[in-house]
Amino acid sequence: MNRPSMVRAHQQVLIDHPKHRKPSNPASRLSRSLSNLLHLHIETPQRSHLSCTNWDLVCQEKQSMPVMSPKEDISYMWQQLHGSNDWHNLLDPLPPCLRREIVKYGEFAQATYDAFDFDPFSEYCGSCRYNLNKLFEQLGLTKHGYKVCKYIYAMSHVNLPGWLERSHWVDTWSKDSNWMGYVAISDDEETRRIGRRDIAVAWRGTVAPSEWYEDFQRKLEPIGDGDAKVEHGFHTIYTSKSDSTRYNKSSASEQVMKEVTRLVQLYRDNGEEVSLTITGHSLGGALALLNAYEAGKSLPGLPISVISFGAPRVGNIAFRDELQDMGIKTLRVVNKQDIVPRMPGIVFNESLERFDDFTGTLDWVYTHVGSELKVDIQSSPYLKHGLNLAGFHCLETYLHLVDGFHGSCSTFRSDAKRDVALVNKACDMLVDELRIPHCWYQLANKGLVPNAHGRWVKPTRKPEDIPSPCS
Amino acid sequence: MNRPSMVRAHQQVLIDHPKHRKPSNPASRLSRSLSNLLHLHIETPQRSHLSCTNWDLVCQEKQSMPVMSPKEDISYMWQQLHGSNDWHNLLDPLPPCLRREIVKYGEFAQATYDAFDFDPFSEYCGSCRYNLNKLFEQLGLTKHGYKVCKYIYAMSHVNLPGWLERSHWVDTWSKDSNWMGYVAISDDEETRRIGRRDIAVAWRGTVAPSEWYEDFQRKLEPIGDGDAKVEHGFHTIYTSKSDSTRYNKSSASEQVMKEVTRLVQLYRDNGEEVSLTITGHSLGGALALLNAYEAGKSLPGLPISVISFGAPRVGNIAFRDELQDMGIKTLRVVNKQDIVPRMPGIVFNESLERFDDFTGTLDWVYTHVGSELKVDIQSSPYLKHGLNLAGFHCLETYLHLVDGFHGSCSTFRSDAKRDVALVNKACDMLVDELRIPHCWYQLANKGLVPNAHGRWVKPTRKPEDIPSPCS
Repeated sequence: MNRPSMVRAHQQVLIDHPKHRKPSNPASRLSRSLSNLLHLHIETPQRSHLSCTNWDLVCQEKQSMPVMSPKEDISYMWQQLHGSNDWHNLLDPLPPCLRREIVKYGEFAQATYDAFDFDPFSEYCGSCRYNLNKLFEQLGLTKHGYKVCKYIYAMSHVNLPGWLERSHWVDTWSKDSNWMGYVAISDDEETRRIGRRDIAVAWRGTVAPSEWYEDFQRKLEPIGDGDAKVEHGFHTIYTSKSDSTRYNKSSASEQVMKEVTRLVQLYRDNGEEVSLTITGHSLGGALALLNAYEAGKSLPGLPISVISFGAPRVGNIAFRDELQDMGIKTLRVVNKQDIVPRMPGIVFNESLERFDDFTGTLDWVYTHVGSELKVDIQSSPYLKHGLNLAGFHCLETYLHLVDGFHGSCSTFRSDAKRDVALVNKACDMLVDELRIPHCWYQLANKGLVPNAHGRWVKPTRKPEDIPSPCS
Repeated sequence: MNRPSMVRAHQQVLIDHPKHRKPSNPASRLSRSLSNLLHLHIETPQRSHLSCTNWDLVCQEKQSMPVMSPKEDISYMWQQLHGSNDWHNLLDPLPPCLRREIVKYGEFAQATYDAFDFDPFSEYCGSCRYNLNKLFEQLGLTKHGYKVCKYIYAMSHVNLPGWLERSHWVDTWSKDSNWMGYVAISDDEETRRIGRRDIAVAWRGTVAPSEWYEDFQRKLEPIGDGDAKVEHGFHTIYTSKSDSTRYNKSSASEQVMKEVTRLVQLYRDNGEEVSLTITGHSLGGALALLNAYEAGKSLPGLPISVISFGAPRVGNIAFRDELQDMGIKTLRVVNKQDIVPRMPGIVFNESLERFDDFTGTLDWVYTHVGSELKVDIQSSPYLKHGLNLAGFHCLETYLHLVDGFHGSCSTFRSDAKRDVALVNKACDMLVDELRIPHCWYQLANKGLVPNAHGRWVKPTRKPEDIPSPCS
């Protein structure tokens, strides 16, 4: 049986099974087809049951608790928390001060989803719903003490399935580009607490990478002057530009590097110590790594870290080695049950016996970089443990698991304070006993409001929130 | 091939066809299986295209228009509009004053959906979200000049698939009953305009009746003292009660008749002319008919009309004849493409050649009663015309079509004023050019709000909106 027909046979089995006939969104559809393609046998373990959990009590107690512990001063050890020693002895057990930092950057990445306009009937589909001065305020993130300085937009010259959100309108803010992330800077108070002026870059992900699975197989392309190669799809999003567009006359790469360079100079001229921390989930984690590679090349001496969540592999061994040689530190947060971090290259790397005909391409092999913080769905008593590949991959699931993580041999932290309800914003992972609806993050009436005549209309955006190529 | 195996064979075909593997809610699932069971071949006609429609212009013009025409005095002809002459010469063409009345009662029926708590994680799932003094205000229906007097609750002793909405909570407002409708009374101003004090009863429907199709085949049961028989499922919802429940110590029938009788006496004692108008959509239309039958028996001389939307057949010929003999007038609004009004009994009545073995049961045949106002999806340039059985059956689709109806040979009224956006509240029927999201009627964050600590919680209901058996 050759591979395509094997795939078809497996897909057939999947489709004929009643369990797989239920409603599917693109994410769950692709995860199903993936789990099949990749011959994954995800365990569906029993609930690690809290004996006689009184959920009503749990709910009540949680509700009267603040969502954050008091912040502590980490200025004396920021380099270690930033990975200077590759987080050696800092991940298992995980100290609270590092946990807080990981969650902070994770919430910066989450903001790129929460503020994104996904509505195809909006003329601003694919943009950020708020201008950069309001973003953190609208999302309740001012508590972290950063200020957004610049929005990043990306396009792609290659037709990558499902990554670009497009408006149905002819007359739209942009036909080619999507809001892809932002650059932020720590304010004076946070700078004092964390011991340096921190430039944070957050990259938006999509559910798309797994849809590119078929394309992924051999499409590595060179980056830099050496043998380093990276996945073609990620690279094209990072570097594409076109004079005929409004938002990508310069590429995402050029936009982010220009702003980061400006900030580094500004604060160094001010005599301050400066760091760069790049974060992203899924595709966003891949872009973060490309961004770190470029920053490492053009800003030598700058402490650079990547904190990624559920990110796929990006490049080959030479790419990893170059990152290491430049001193770029990467902390990959990986959920054991999430399949995206095993892509692409899972077939090459983990099933070599099975596809002997492919071993000739081993010099192209994809590899992960840096240190790994492994979390596990099974550790949390709040989560359903049944197969839910979309839920396993959700960033909010990751943030919940990090919040509850103490060490690989410890149970879920009983004093974890982050709001558990957030997990279900865009998936259905919480146990029913918590009574949190699934996929609850939604606008009232999908944004329609009654006008003066009582007609339901989509309000025009406030002028200050209309995207502009200059922000 | 006997019938069951034929059905299975058809179902198999349905399941194997890729078109039928897409996301499905209960409504679309059942409509698919029905269209198959009933050997329906719904036409999927071409759009009746407005030549060169400038949708932007259409949208703009609509938005600056009031949603209602001025009201006119109908006191001099209310009996005819109430069906005294079986709406003879009043349906084709349809005079504006009757159209307004039909839409008014339709909006009363729509209120039973719009205010219903469908959330299984709500402890008040299955109740009305507002108390009766706030209902019309919350839904923007005070314009009609009625006041809600009484809520009606229903239960069923028989296990009817999918009709009862249940809370996941153990400690819920009611385990057995659902809010099923209400009684309202015209205020003084509206009473002057319409020429009599009008008692309106609105019954909530569900998508369930079509799920009972299999049960429907022979389960007629006697009603009254003669040969009249009605469908068992409808009758059990209308008449079930149990001392062990909080809301159905008396049946829906007893609740509604007690309130209607009280109101009739109150206003007759006041020397006023009184009418009863009962409305409902789908299952609600069936309950309206049972309600009218009972009111006809116990309140002789009271002018009683039923205005139903997409209602299934309810009883046999003797049932119809008794209704006629009592002078009960029924106006059935039927959308040509909606299959629910053809149920139950469609197999008996329309495919006799096919199921010869069943013709022995013809004395049990279900039949429609009263006058029919037939509307047609194809008449509206705002609607998609592709197969969408759930959308064809939606009450808002009906109200849109009535609003645009002038006569069977006329095009959609260009001066129809009702807000077209309402159609898509719970379905996907509007052409994309209108840019109205589908299924847009939804709460912000599914009702979750951040509490004082920033945690997302379901707020407890306002005390005045907590259901009570006394309201």
